[in-house]
Amino acid sequence: MKNSGSKPNASAKAETIYGLHPVRVLLERHPERVVVVRLTERRDDPRAKEIEDLARKKGRPVQRVDANALKQSLGDVAHQGVIAEISPLPPWSEDDLLEALQTVKDPLLLALDGVQDPHNLGACLRTADACGALAVIVPRDRAAQVNATVRKVAVGAAETTPVVAVTNLVRTLKLLKEAGLWIVGADAEGAKPAHEADLKGGTVLVMGAEGAGLRHLTKQTCDWMVRLPQLGTVESLNVSVAAGMLLYEAVRQRMGPAPGK
Amino acid sequence: MKNSGSKPNASAKAETIYGLHPVRVLLERHPERVVVVRLTERRDDPRAKEIEDLARKKGRPVQRVDANALKQSLGDVAHQGVIAEISPLPPWSEDDLLEALQTVKDPLLLALDGVQDPHNLGACLRTADACGALAVIVPRDRAAQVNATVRKVAVGAAETTPVVAVTNLVRTLKLLKEAGLWIVGADAEGAKPAHEADLKGGTVLVMGAEGAGLRHLTKQTCDWMVRLPQLGTVESLNVSVAAGMLLYEAVRQRMGPAPGK
Repeated sequence: MKNSGSKPNASAKAETIYGLHPVRVLLERHPERVVVVRLTERRDDPRAKEIEDLARKKGRPVQRVDANALKQSLGDVAHQGVIAEISPLPPWSEDDLLEALQTVKDPLLLALDGVQDPHNLGACLRTADACGALAVIVPRDRAAQVNATVRKVAVGAAETTPVVAVTNLVRTLKLLKEAGLWIVGADAEGAKPAHEADLKGGTVLVMGAEGAGLRHLTKQTCDWMVRLPQLGTVESLNVSVAAGMLLYEAVRQRMGPAPGK
Repeated sequence: MKNSGSKPNASAKAETIYGLHPVRVLLERHPERVVVVRLTERRDDPRAKEIEDLARKKGRPVQRVDANALKQSLGDVAHQGVIAEISPLPPWSEDDLLEALQTVKDPLLLALDGVQDPHNLGACLRTADACGALAVIVPRDRAAQVNATVRKVAVGAAETTPVVAVTNLVRTLKLLKEAGLWIVGADAEGAKPAHEADLKGGTVLVMGAEGAGLRHLTKQTCDWMVRLPQLGTVESLNVSVAAGMLLYEAVRQRMGPAPGK
């Protein structure tokens, strides 16, 4: 579904991803971005063998490396004996985004209206990736951009889910609306609970900044405002948790009703 | 719904909460725990006036404080001119938990099987509070416990949503099962998507530790294992985001179907 590998950025510094699942997905979906696959020397693991076979089938080089050397370079991470150097995902322009919309049925997008904390941006990227979002849109100014912290927190998602940094978020949302997408904002005062909004068609989910929430102009641009659970004492949900709930709800609706319901 | 204020711990050091919503909820639900309400000197704000009236109605003392002094003691937080000193919520024992179950219809509980990162525990508490969970259960050993970091990340939820630290999580889950609750674990390999499990009755949602997931014995104790979206590259969701999705799903089911569906 994702069209995120169209422009590998071979001249930029390679990024390291690790773990069976991320390396397998990159080899399957974007083999042209895999510079080299490195496997630790235990050859008896059928899952490592599977990665090796897949890499060779896709024509990507495979190296054997020493597990201790890997630990020294990566630190104490759960690499499962499988890492890959990949060409980083270049940021998308607004035009890239509009073009990619044509390639996907009912695209799901996440827009963050001024999220400042790189941990929150990284967590949102990780969840957007898990929920099959096409891209994450952030304003270019006064908002966190992809950096080393974001990449770390996103555990690989920054290498596969494109981030689109836009000059004017409201203008971009209007372009997406003209392209036929629904713009759905989250807000404690939203008119209806999230599950009463139809998120099955092409949808942009718009989350507000930490504390401040959605700006007035952003709210005015939304087709609907929806609310998330607020049954307790706390004033609001963490933005990455709230984004997770809304992305989950969109995925749930797209999976259809539970059997027998 | 919550029975979290039955044992104010007047001898312990008071905790500070701030913001209109948290202070209002504490005054409404657990006035006996409010030691003093402090308001900055702007008297023209009708919302501050509402808090003042509520505090006086509940017989709790109100002080006027200087906004600059407040900023010096609290730092740059969004206190909205309203803070309260409250007696801290004492941890619950397993007996407290079993007793509290009797006071609530269809209780919703969150259990964390060895979450180590205090940020994740704090984020889970914040979300559990927002979703109306009765309590959060954690193992006493090899798991994050409530500390200053947890309280800060939980933005007040640690003062209202009780944490139950138990010696043997599997044993506690079995007791809860005997008490009539369903034990529902989350796992990437779960037999069905979360929305196909019935979470409307009394339910314990069980989340695994970062990286490791649920322990084998914990899984065996669960009535069902459910899975969350995993459509992308990343190996897993962040535990607090995953907990947010499952708690959201339980709240959604408890709200009933969307109109016209």
